[in-house]
Amino acid sequence: MAKKDKEFVKEITPQSQDYSQWYLDVVQKAQLMDYAPVKGCMVIRPYGYTLWENMKQRLDARIKATGHVNAYFPLFIPESLLQKEAEHVEGFAPEVAWVTHGGNEKLTERLVVRPTSETIICEMYSRWIQSYRDLPVLINQWCNVVRWEKVTRPFLRTSEFLWQEGHTAHCNEEEAEEETLKMLEVYRDYVENDLAVPVVTGRKTEREKFAGALRTYSIEALMSDGKALQAGTSHNLGTHFAEVFDIQYLDRDGELKYVWQTSWGTSTRLIGALIMVHGDDRGMVLPPRVAPVQVIMVPIAPQKDREEVLSKAGAILQELKDAGIRVDMDDRPEYSPGWKFNEWEMKGVPLRLELGPRDLKAGTVVLARRDNGEKEAVPAADGLAERIKQLLEEIQDNMYKKAKKFMDENTRRTDDYEEFKTIIAEKRGFVIAGWCGEDDCEQKIKEETKATIRNIPFHLQDENPGKCLRCRNEAKHLVYFARAY
Amino acid sequence: MAKKDKEFVKEITPQSQDYSQWYLDVVQKAQLMDYAPVKGCMVIRPYGYTLWENMKQRLDARIKATGHVNAYFPLFIPESLLQKEAEHVEGFAPEVAWVTHGGNEKLTERLVVRPTSETIICEMYSRWIQSYRDLPVLINQWCNVVRWEKVTRPFLRTSEFLWQEGHTAHCNEEEAEEETLKMLEVYRDYVENDLAVPVVTGRKTEREKFAGALRTYSIEALMSDGKALQAGTSHNLGTHFAEVFDIQYLDRDGELKYVWQTSWGTSTRLIGALIMVHGDDRGMVLPPRVAPVQVIMVPIAPQKDREEVLSKAGAILQELKDAGIRVDMDDRPEYSPGWKFNEWEMKGVPLRLELGPRDLKAGTVVLARRDNGEKEAVPAADGLAERIKQLLEEIQDNMYKKAKKFMDENTRRTDDYEEFKTIIAEKRGFVIAGWCGEDDCEQKIKEETKATIRNIPFHLQDENPGKCLRCRNEAKHLVYFARAY
Repeated sequence: MAKKDKEFVKEITPQSQDYSQWYLDVVQKAQLMDYAPVKGCMVIRPYGYTLWENMKQRLDARIKATGHVNAYFPLFIPESLLQKEAEHVEGFAPEVAWVTHGGNEKLTERLVVRPTSETIICEMYSRWIQSYRDLPVLINQWCNVVRWEKVTRPFLRTSEFLWQEGHTAHCNEEEAEEETLKMLEVYRDYVENDLAVPVVTGRKTEREKFAGALRTYSIEALMSDGKALQAGTSHNLGTHFAEVFDIQYLDRDGELKYVWQTSWGTSTRLIGALIMVHGDDRGMVLPPRVAPVQVIMVPIAPQKDREEVLSKAGAILQELKDAGIRVDMDDRPEYSPGWKFNEWEMKGVPLRLELGPRDLKAGTVVLARRDNGEKEAVPAADGLAERIKQLLEEIQDNMYKKAKKFMDENTRRTDDYEEFKTIIAEKRGFVIAGWCGEDDCEQKIKEETKATIRNIPFHLQDENPGKCLRCRNEAKHLVYFARAY
Repeated sequence: MAKKDKEFVKEITPQSQDYSQWYLDVVQKAQLMDYAPVKGCMVIRPYGYTLWENMKQRLDARIKATGHVNAYFPLFIPESLLQKEAEHVEGFAPEVAWVTHGGNEKLTERLVVRPTSETIICEMYSRWIQSYRDLPVLINQWCNVVRWEKVTRPFLRTSEFLWQEGHTAHCNEEEAEEETLKMLEVYRDYVENDLAVPVVTGRKTEREKFAGALRTYSIEALMSDGKALQAGTSHNLGTHFAEVFDIQYLDRDGELKYVWQTSWGTSTRLIGALIMVHGDDRGMVLPPRVAPVQVIMVPIAPQKDREEVLSKAGAILQELKDAGIRVDMDDRPEYSPGWKFNEWEMKGVPLRLELGPRDLKAGTVVLARRDNGEKEAVPAADGLAERIKQLLEEIQDNMYKKAKKFMDENTRRTDDYEEFKTIIAEKRGFVIAGWCGEDDCEQKIKEETKATIRNIPFHLQDENPGKCLRCRNEAKHLVYFARAY
């Protein structure tokens, strides 16, 4: 490795030295984002936004395939609407931005910049829903939301972020619960298959549920530093909002009934998950299905062969584009091949295609994988696009398996509180343990260890939960504990 | 026509009776939008939002095909940033929403909810642009913006709206001007070909240009009531913003130079144009390329034939979907075929496919065009999808031609001010006339006739402009006048 290339890699703080700084280095140097001149806000730069567009496109297709349609509701919510649902306002009021003036005039009622849209959407649903024939209402919205955060972190927690929020209305509990779980499963499928991020699905505790919900479900992922990240939530809102917003429908039996509602969301936070699950000391590693650039071509052309190499490279570039591969070529003469290798590795491009005079003679190109560093020479002939597509699938698959292995290896079980404390402090990761179901124990464990209950996982609900980790009473559930972002 | 059907149509105020009310009836009854509980804001309902998604997708493809990438900048702009460019702040400050509190705390500096993003983007460009190698910067953003409007109108003028705003930086005037005109041409091509709305391209006067721009260009459309609508603008910003935001680059010659910038935008306002250019007393008429539903199938099934008709209809539905046609079926038993015909005509669906027992016997279906009411029976066999695609193209083409004919017939020329006043008051439409180039004449004509100069059209720039309509001095340009939305 040339000295210049070493220095390049040095620009990123190693994970082992300072994981948090590694993350900040990566998001900025890979040009995913930049800090904005507004406290807690960020700019999503083109490379980061293209990643988000790819993610959005794949999730949007799943949301539509399950019968939902998109709509758009106003950014501003009158204070009186936010106030209607007691738990909801308590949860959100402390962290909202307030609009008090329009033009030169003071507003008669303050407006909230939406932190989430349940209230304004419920207000509209109360007008739109009259009869059982109007149900179910299955609407999703892609938009920006604002939560005035004190401590922020790019993608993970910013005062403004982008997300989708689904809001549905149903005629009874059964259908609402079915929808809530269906969307959780849509999220699991999307995050595991498109983002290659394994998750644990389950129900949130009362303490951790959404402000105003009856029940909240979540998918929880494990970052490579052993901290958990809530990657998506789906709420059964019960009739809480319907009662205060008076959303009633005339049922077949001639009676007026409150609708049952759900809401569910995922955000640009998932970009943070992608980085922290797959990244390494060289930078990002992006799953092929959402990578802005799937293949980066780096022609290696000494002056005398330059024209010949670039001509062949140009032909391959077009061939791969025609095959539907997101491919780009870096033929900037002012940078060395080594510099380019580092640059595109940092940006997480799944596959690098090298082409030099020797390859030209041999009729081959070199393909280098970002996920495991493997290189292979393959014929630069018909079938190259197919081989690349196959490799991209293999990379996607390998990335998921690798992340799943890490999560499994860092998911431990204990029923001993002292051992629990040691694991949480020294190894982190998920710890499965019994919990009595009492808020007090949950709270004390958090105070004493900084670990929270991530969720009550579906996959362990039939097991005997044993004793509560802390109070030693009969446990009600086996739960996942972790320190979390 | 059954009585019930007549009443249905009566729900929409005829254009001739009250054009403005016709518009409001259509946007609400077709469920494009609903009024929000926030002054001047609206909800874009699923049917309206799907239309916007289709429009967005087609324009976004054009923006990307011309080398631009999407990004996302913050919603909030610190007051001090907005203030930097004098003309810009003067133009926008009176109509912005102010955020003064975050959570429970008063902010040390007030924040503006973006009315447009030049200032915050320039702040970032001043960090990102160092060398000629960084140029051009070609970024676009899809987002919501807020302008605190006193008088609002769905889609045409709302306090919050959705749009795209392109922001580019170039090394010199020539490249900036080329970009400005290129994007104007992208807009023209998109609006004429995808929305079937003919436009006049040209330059805005000093009075009508964007606050802070060097030159503004626009595309202007003519609504069916004879009023004009500005459908898109493209600005050459010169070095105005670069100078106050200090966006300089080191050129090849070793000198520091200010970048030249452009910005350009189109918004949900175009939905208003679609409605007012193509709509009629039965409701909307949507161009096939962006219609949420291109073909609506209405099976006409008396009870005894119901199963057979629905089975055949289901097969056709699938066949058309597989062919990539946006098709839907209305098989609700509680509504009559006549009611459904009216409903989907109001919603502007380009083509209706009717299928009843008689068609079944004859092996045909009936296709009814929304644009001209023509009906034809076609074989329900292989080739049906192809015939439908062909018809959709014909409809698209016919809609453009019809609108173009209307615009041509309502574009008049005069050099007589009294005649001008009569045309503007009685016939409206575009009036081409000479103008001396003086702000005073432009202003007086506006006061005396409510007509404004829409633009100085490219296509007449080589003609002798004659005398100024009002002052009778030598005219500098032939311009388009109209009353406008």
